[in-house]
Amino acid sequence: MPEVVRIDPTPGQLASVRFDANGLVAAIAQDVVTKDVLMMAWMNADSLAQTFAEGTMVYWSRSRQELWRKGDTSGDRQLVREAYYDCDGDTLLFLVEQLGRGACHTGARTCFFRSFGEATAPEHEPAG
Amino acid sequence: MPEVVRIDPTPGQLASVRFDANGLVAAIAQDVVTKDVLMMAWMNADSLAQTFAEGTMVYWSRSRQELWRKGDTSGDRQLVREAYYDCDGDTLLFLVEQLGRGACHTGARTCFFRSFGEATAPEHEPAG
Repeated sequence: MPEVVRIDPTPGQLASVRFDANGLVAAIAQDVVTKDVLMMAWMNADSLAQTFAEGTMVYWSRSRQELWRKGDTSGDRQLVREAYYDCDGDTLLFLVEQLGRGACHTGARTCFFRSFGEATAPEHEPAG
Repeated sequence: MPEVVRIDPTPGQLASVRFDANGLVAAIAQDVVTKDVLMMAWMNADSLAQTFAEGTMVYWSRSRQELWRKGDTSGDRQLVREAYYDCDGDTLLFLVEQLGRGACHTGARTCFFRSFGEATAPEHEPAG
């Protein structure tokens, strides 16, 4: 079985999290192995607490207005390995071990599987 | 001078971007070299267009309600190298070449410089 890492945030750390007017904070999940960004979703205070308590990502589904235990349906759980909060406390970053096929409901490994344009050969900026 | 990469999104790609009720979409900046997540901020349609036109990150400042040309004050610009949109089009991911000290106004390389708790030794989940 995959190992669960227990992260115990301090009260001060939790107090640094700034939930928005809807009681939500943005949460980015990044693959701890490949460092690919897998997805961005939202957490309320309850889902954040459960994420730490269980060591697996629990989001808040804005569309369904309910807790969203990532992987409950698909089995593609995300085990928390490291957790960070940003300078103004309104975005969280979780490094996770992604189980199963991947993070995206489409079956893709990451939700960011579509790129804009096609990068052309680099141009040099004008000198001076 | 650092090279600027031109990314020309197609109309179809741009039409896939879903701006929220405030006309904003979340934009994650990730270091193209280290793959560290540097910051998350917001873009409106204008800042997104300017980001592609100039090849350097242009956000929308919600607090100042104005375009925020990253690095105009600090010199710590972010040159766009790759750009992605997620499965439901409400989050963008930019791989950037971070110039100067870093992304954070605190002087840190990344805005996610504070971690929750201290990871203890992994526990094995109960067998069965």
